[in-house]
Amino acid sequence: MYSVGMSTPERLIESTRELLWERGYVGTSPKAILERSGAGQGSMYHHFKGKPDLALAAIRRTAEEMRATAEAVLSSPGTPYQRIEAYLRRERDVLRGCPIGRLTMDPEIVASQELRAPVDETLDWLRERLAGIVEEGKEQGQFAPGLDGEEIAAAIVATVQGGYVLARASGSPAAFDTGVRGLLALLRPTA
Amino acid sequence: MYSVGMSTPERLIESTRELLWERGYVGTSPKAILERSGAGQGSMYHHFKGKPDLALAAIRRTAEEMRATAEAVLSSPGTPYQRIEAYLRRERDVLRGCPIGRLTMDPEIVASQELRAPVDETLDWLRERLAGIVEEGKEQGQFAPGLDGEEIAAAIVATVQGGYVLARASGSPAAFDTGVRGLLALLRPTA
Repeated sequence: MYSVGMSTPERLIESTRELLWERGYVGTSPKAILERSGAGQGSMYHHFKGKPDLALAAIRRTAEEMRATAEAVLSSPGTPYQRIEAYLRRERDVLRGCPIGRLTMDPEIVASQELRAPVDETLDWLRERLAGIVEEGKEQGQFAPGLDGEEIAAAIVATVQGGYVLARASGSPAAFDTGVRGLLALLRPTA
Repeated sequence: MYSVGMSTPERLIESTRELLWERGYVGTSPKAILERSGAGQGSMYHHFKGKPDLALAAIRRTAEEMRATAEAVLSSPGTPYQRIEAYLRRERDVLRGCPIGRLTMDPEIVASQELRAPVDETLDWLRERLAGIVEEGKEQGQFAPGLDGEEIAAAIVATVQGGYVLARASGSPAAFDTGVRGLLALLRPTA
């Protein structure tokens, strides 16, 4: 599945990232990782201590990518509202869901402090980043002074994460877009 | 685990409901269902065609319960805003997540039209019910006339579903409550 030029650890990490996104941690067997990566069992245990170690490398990389993508949109030019809107409306593979958020439904991820850490840190970073933008908007008079940046930020991130649930339940991205439009209508400056 | 008075099909359904909530469909093996229910393999296949058939019975019952709980709160006395607030603030087992919403992260549920149907219908019913309440609030001048009931309803359901993701990521129900407070601050009538 991967280019011949890719090293074995790379192929293992990329295969694990895909499987975690599609099937979650509980649903990803070492056997499935070996099959998808084309690596041998000995090679996997040479490079990684086991499934948790390999999953941690995979989750960390996915978390870094998610953060970079979000930061690119959130630091783009525009008013605070426009940057939040750009974040909410950016193109997503809605029916695949969020590769980080979906891990929270995995009992073994949530039970492991090590595996949960990059998930928690990424969502936490996103909330803090959005809270700062809401505060900027309040200073500029774009949002009501009574709003709390951290609360609005949590509502924004929750709408995105829950939007995936609605989309996957209905089998169509439309439900995600409907929820985003609802939140934007409530956030929109009335000036 | 269950009272002696409970019939075998009942014990099988209740055990499957718990396992689906904790571990999802992919993570629930027929063996785990037998262990938890204390039923024998022959008995399971006597009452149900197999794991999908048993899961369908379990999901349908969970969906009915969720709908009845939501309806009780949404039809309680109060203004449209107060009923939405009561729904958002009602006590939940936040760290366990939503037993219906979490199923959307399961590739085998999403791929099966039969297993996905009760998930989709429940979330769809909830959105329609909330949309009607938002429309009532608009008629009463509690919500801005420009708001779209279906959009706001989708944002409400998404905030709840995504709130579980934030709570489970951080290992604390606080993040759920923060997102709910954010959405309520945006919805609150300014009269």
